[in-house]
This record gives sequence, C-alpha cells and structure tokens, in this order.
Amino acid sequence: MRSTLGRSMLGDEIVGRINQLGTISEAAEHLARVFLSAEHRIAADLLMSWMEDAGMAAHLDGIGNVCGRYEGNRPGLPCLMLGSHYDTVRDAGKWDGPLGVITAIACVADLNRRGVRLPFAVEVVGFADEEGVRFSSTLLGSRAIAGTFDEAVLDARDASGVSMREAMAQFGLDSGRIGTAARKRSELHAYVELHIEQGPVLEQRNLPVGVVTAIAGATRLAVSLSGLAGHAGTVPMALRRDALAGAAECIVAVEQFCGDDDAGLVGTVGAITAMPGATNVIPGRVSFTLDVRAPTDDHRRLAVAGIVRQIEAIAKRRELSLQVDITHENRTVPCASWLKAQVAEAVAAEGYAVFELPSGAGHDGMAMIDVADVAMLFVRCRGGISHNPAEHVASADADAGACVLLRFIENFRPLPSS
Amino acid sequence: MRSTLGRSMLGDEIVGRINQLGTISEAAEHLARVFLSAEHRIAADLLMSWMEDAGMAAHLDGIGNVCGRYEGNRPGLPCLMLGSHYDTVRDAGKWDGPLGVITAIACVADLNRRGVRLPFAVEVVGFADEEGVRFSSTLLGSRAIAGTFDEAVLDARDASGVSMREAMAQFGLDSGRIGTAARKRSELHAYVELHIEQGPVLEQRNLPVGVVTAIAGATRLAVSLSGLAGHAGTVPMALRRDALAGAAECIVAVEQFCGDDDAGLVGTVGAITAMPGATNVIPGRVSFTLDVRAPTDDHRRLAVAGIVRQIEAIAKRRELSLQVDITHENRTVPCASWLKAQVAEAVAAEGYAVFELPSGAGHDGMAMIDVADVAMLFVRCRGGISHNPAEHVASADADAGACVLLRFIENFRPLPSS
Repeated sequence: MRSTLGRSMLGDEIVGRINQLGTISEAAEHLARVFLSAEHRIAADLLMSWMEDAGMAAHLDGIGNVCGRYEGNRPGLPCLMLGSHYDTVRDAGKWDGPLGVITAIACVADLNRRGVRLPFAVEVVGFADEEGVRFSSTLLGSRAIAGTFDEAVLDARDASGVSMREAMAQFGLDSGRIGTAARKRSELHAYVELHIEQGPVLEQRNLPVGVVTAIAGATRLAVSLSGLAGHAGTVPMALRRDALAGAAECIVAVEQFCGDDDAGLVGTVGAITAMPGATNVIPGRVSFTLDVRAPTDDHRRLAVAGIVRQIEAIAKRRELSLQVDITHENRTVPCASWLKAQVAEAVAAEGYAVFELPSGAGHDGMAMIDVADVAMLFVRCRGGISHNPAEHVASADADAGACVLLRFIENFRPLPSS
Repeated sequence: MRSTLGRSMLGDEIVGRINQLGTISEAAEHLARVFLSAEHRIAADLLMSWMEDAGMAAHLDGIGNVCGRYEGNRPGLPCLMLGSHYDTVRDAGKWDGPLGVITAIACVADLNRRGVRLPFAVEVVGFADEEGVRFSSTLLGSRAIAGTFDEAVLDARDASGVSMREAMAQFGLDSGRIGTAARKRSELHAYVELHIEQGPVLEQRNLPVGVVTAIAGATRLAVSLSGLAGHAGTVPMALRRDALAGAAECIVAVEQFCGDDDAGLVGTVGAITAMPGATNVIPGRVSFTLDVRAPTDDHRRLAVAGIVRQIEAIAKRRELSLQVDITHENRTVPCASWLKAQVAEAVAAEGYAVFELPSGAGHDGMAMIDVADVAMLFVRCRGGISHNPAEHVASADADAGACVLLRFIENFRPLPSS
C-alpha cells in the first residue's frame, strides 16, 4: 500500500477528512463543536457514514458516542477498540480528537478494501465528550463505555441554563438509557488511541510518532498568601509583608523544583490574582493556581509534597499566612506494557525510531482503563501548539501515524488471558 | 498651655473636629468626600466657620480651596502658609488631609485666644483636591494656588459624565476665575504641612512626630513579557518560555534590588495580569506595574535604570520579549533645609527626639514648591494604615503634632531674603 514516494495514500485522505470535519462548527469564524449541539449531531452522522463506507456497522450509542464495528474472521469476537473524541474546545484546532477517529476509520477501510479479516473484531469509537466544555465535566463519552458514568452530571447546566438531560433529549437521546453504552471487559482486548502530541517533544526529536508510556496524573492546587497591604511609597522594604513578592518567590521555586527533576515532572502556575491590584499599593493578598503532573502517581505526590514544603517555608519566613487546597486530582494511567510493546514494534516495523514519552494531557484512556488495557500513539504537531486554530499536523506525519496504526492492527496479538 | 498631665487641650479638640468632619460623606456607610460634591461644599462651610471662630478671615478661593487669614502685627504682611487637603479617597480614613487643616486652625485659635500677633501673617488652607479621585488629576487645589493649574482638566469628566467645568458651576464656582486663586511668591514666606505619616516608620521608632526630608518622586512603569503559551501537561520544563515564571523572577529581583539599598529606595509591583490565565495553560504573556520611589531624583533614576537592566537580562536569558514603558514620573520635592531646621527645633523644644524621614506618599507640597519653600511634619498613625477606615491617630499624638506646630509658628523666622 505504500506509494513509490515511500508514502501511503492514507495521509492525504485523512487530511481531507480533517478539513471537512473542521468546517462543522457552531460559528463560521472559529471551530467549536461541543457535546450534544446541533453541529455535534451533524459531525456524528458524517463519521457514521465514513464508518459504513469503510465496511463497518455504525451506530450512535446511549451517550452519543459514534461506534463502528468491523467483524473479525467470525462474527461476535472480542474487539480491539480504537478511537478518540469528536467534540472540541472553543476556538479549537481541527486535529485534537478527530485525527484518532479518522485515522482508525482509514485503517479499517484499508483492511476492508483488501478483504482482510482478523482473528478479532476492530471497533472504532468517536467519543462524544472528552473536553468537557459544555457541562464542565470531562470524559463523559468514555466513562459511559467504561460503565463509570456519574448520573449526577445529568443535572449540570450549560451557560444557557440547559441541563444535560434536556440537551440529550434535544439531540435525540434518552438519558435513561446511558447505561446501554457500557461495555464488558470480556468484549475488549484493548483500547488503543492515536492522538496529536499537543507538545513540542516529537518536533524537537525530529520524529513523526512517539509511543506513550502513561497518561500523567495531575494535581491542581489553589494557593493563597496573605500579608499586609500598604502604600507603595511609605512602607520601607524591611517592614513589608508583600504577598506578591512572596508569591513570586514561590513561582520561581516551583519552576526550579520541576526543572531539577529529569523524569518528566512539570509544574505550572497558570493563573494569578493580586489584591487590591493597584499600581501604588503593596499587594496584601495573592492567589495562584498550581498544576503538577508526573508519569507516576508516587512521583507526582512526592513532588507536590516537596513543592508545598517549599511554599510553606517561604510563607513562614515572610510572615505571610498561607492556604493551600487541592482542587482536583487525577490518577496516572499507565499504558499496558504488553500493548505498548506491540505499538513500539509497529513503529519500528514502519522504519521509525521508537521513542517513548508520557502524555501530559488527559485523554479518553483515563476512563477506558476501567474496562480495558490502554495504549497510545502520539503524532507530531507543529510547534506543540494545540487548543488553538494554529494546531497543525503535516500530511506526511498523518500518513506515518496511519501506517503505524495499520501495521499495529494487522500484527495485533491479544493477551492469551483476555 | 500644657495641662498637668503634660498634654495640652489641643489633641482632644482636634480629635472631636476630625470625627465631626468625618461624618460629612457621600454615604453613611463609608467616608468619601470628593472634589466639588455637595458634601465637599458642606465641609468647606464647616471649615470656614472654624476658621472664623479662630479669629481668621475666611473665604473660598477660585478653585474651592478654603482659605483663612490671621493677620500679623500689622495688616497685609507676607504669610506663613499652613494647610493640607479636605477631599478624601473613597472608603477613606478621617485623618489623611483633615488633620493638617484642623491642627493649623487649632494653633491659630490658640494664638488668637492669647492675643498673640506675629511679625508675619498666618494663613491656613484646606486644599480642595489632593487625591484626584473625581477627575483623575491630583493636586488641583494646590496647583491653582501655585499658578500651575492646567485648564485642560476642566474638560475632564467624572464617572457620571459630568465635566469639571460643570461640577464647578454646580458647586457655585466660575471656572473662568480659577486664576484668581494663584498667589505670588512674595506673598508667602513658606508652606508647611502637618500630615499623618501613612507608613509604619514612626510607630516602629516609637515616636509621635517626624521631620520630613523630601517628598519622594515616583516613577511608574508598565512591564510586559511575552513568551509562548502552552499546555501545562505537555511542554517539558526545559522547552518552556513561561512569561509568568519570568515575571516572578523580575518581581523577586525588584524586591532584592530595593532591599539592598539603605537610603530609602522602595519598589513595588502592585498589579499583575497573566494571560490566558487558565490553571492548565502556561502563561504566554504577563503585564505588571512597577512603582519606584527614592528621596532624590538621581537616586530614583539610577535605581530605575538598574532595575530595568536586571529585567532586560532576565527576559533575554528566558527568551521572552520585553516591553517597558514609563507611565508616570513625579520629581522629588526636597524640604527646604532652613525651614526643616526650624521644624526640627520645634520638635526638640517640645521634648521629642528629632527623627527625619522621607515622605513616600505625594502631598500638596509637590505643587506648592513652585510658589514657596516647603516643609512637612509627620504624625504617627496606627499600623501605618491609611486610605482605609482603620486609619487612626491617637489623641496624644494629635496633641503632640499640634504642640510642635504651634511652637514652630511662634518661633518662625522667615528667611531674610523672603
């Protein structure tokens, strides 16, 4: 299936479909396709038509996931499940999510064209909600399949006051039947997702693809420091209890702590507020957020404890009162070593260097781990830019990802026990 | 005039009037008395009645300053001018401004009770606008007296869209006659202001009063750093260009630079904005303000240059683009040494240690310097707190300030040339 130029035709087909799907948006000026919107339904129908063209039986499941099934060498076999999500953030790029769905469909279409049937079924899922833009709750599609959907979310309301229950009815789904989307572990050999990296590492390594080791867990903290506000002109430096100077020292310490770690730890202060926030007033109170991620839970928890100890020491020395709250915590999801090894084999077989990296971003695998072993293949994206209209994947890299995924599927050996 | 307890009766009288004036506000819940408001007019009338009770001829000048004149041993002599402002910020304390006006009136009342006439006149001014809350332009009252009022301000509008010209008419003033407020240098021997410190230095030194060396000039800068926004999970620490981490290093550097200076330099970052400002996004752009003050202009300019060099070095090392703009610059106003020496003599004569300190806050002397030599006496305020309802001066300290000011007036010797 490779052309004489050393490339398959898959890349160009994938890019064409990415562009086509990217026009289905709530607005012409930017791409936004949120869960259960009218454009979300149009996108679902388009994906199902592509699944059927690829020889799959397609349906919309109880939560709005698009599901296509390509039977194995006899009907009803457990499946290798592939996929990603088809919802987007607001002002999104076209690749985050759709690349994994469209590439998987392209691989099945290739099998189908060649009449290849495997000793397992292949299923492709387009998850309905990964980003969580509309109801502030992520991974709704994959949680429904994993059987961990929390029905309390049905009462959550979007910015217009529409509840998820009402939005499901408008979309044509019965919120009482979400449970029908859940799958059993025995139905799945594994879940494997292809996704853009959303970071700059593969570009820096000059590699089109990378093998994911784990989806990094994250701890988010809210930090608040209180000192004493005062007049910028009348309080000598030695008598100040400046909350912003204290916060600045903490931010530098976070950067240094994570920079000194050579095992993938990252820490980010993304938001900061200084009060009262006037040019001529020493800030009396500062709040900032802290996001910490690492390839293992132990590593992350140790790092959080170490960073908090440093912040405590800074606050104490500066006589600032300190409040630290954990606002969010996600476990790390390791990719299964047997599955990761088969992804790596496919990378090598396609002639690329095998490079392993953690995923710092969250993905549907975080929910799918509850029903199947998980692995991921990353595809290089330009400048590491994501969640932005400038998000871009070269056609050659889309092709490389598709060739690796296709090779992986054809060579896939389920675990004997699964 | 001292009571047997070592205190005069002036302190209690002053505190009573501070409390009375402090009830004249735009709202019952907080103190706010802005330029040319109805309550501003009520306060002016009350101050003029107190001036007349103290034996002064009182009038409202062309800009709304309250002016009282106590003739010397013959009519028409040049005056020693005393005063402060009677406008306030919003949610103000009662002392910032009024203490200087009310204390000066109390001193003249004491002279008048005792029938003392001096070889110069004493004038007390309540400046109409020092804070600049309503029309975002400070020192309007003292500029009018100094003859440096900028008529362009008449077209400035308040938050309700009322121009200063219209507000003057509502107040009962003719904006075409502001020039009549201007005084000649030959009419004034000096301008001396008593004011609360608005800082914690006198409290820390356990002193009720302090002699001001200079009103510190200020340079305000707007600093903007741009790096590259990115996903908090996917960009390794070594590949980041985090604008907030860079800003944090700058803030720590500002604090250290000013802390290393032992000659009164202060630098404050009061406001900061990080964009996009999301927990899980590395900040791509940060803006912050920088306020730098020092007792001399040379000192301040050298410090600003030194700080900017450090910020430039930080930005360069971190590959952040940098924009630095000076948004505001006030010259330093030194207190005249001959006048400051007489204030210090009065402090010593009243039995207090003579302690000199710069004023980090701005005052009407910044405008009065254009028409007279200037000196200031600071009175301790609790916790250094100002521009806040918690602003407080002990009655004993108000009394100490009044005794020093009265002693200064009685012993005042004009410069031979003035």
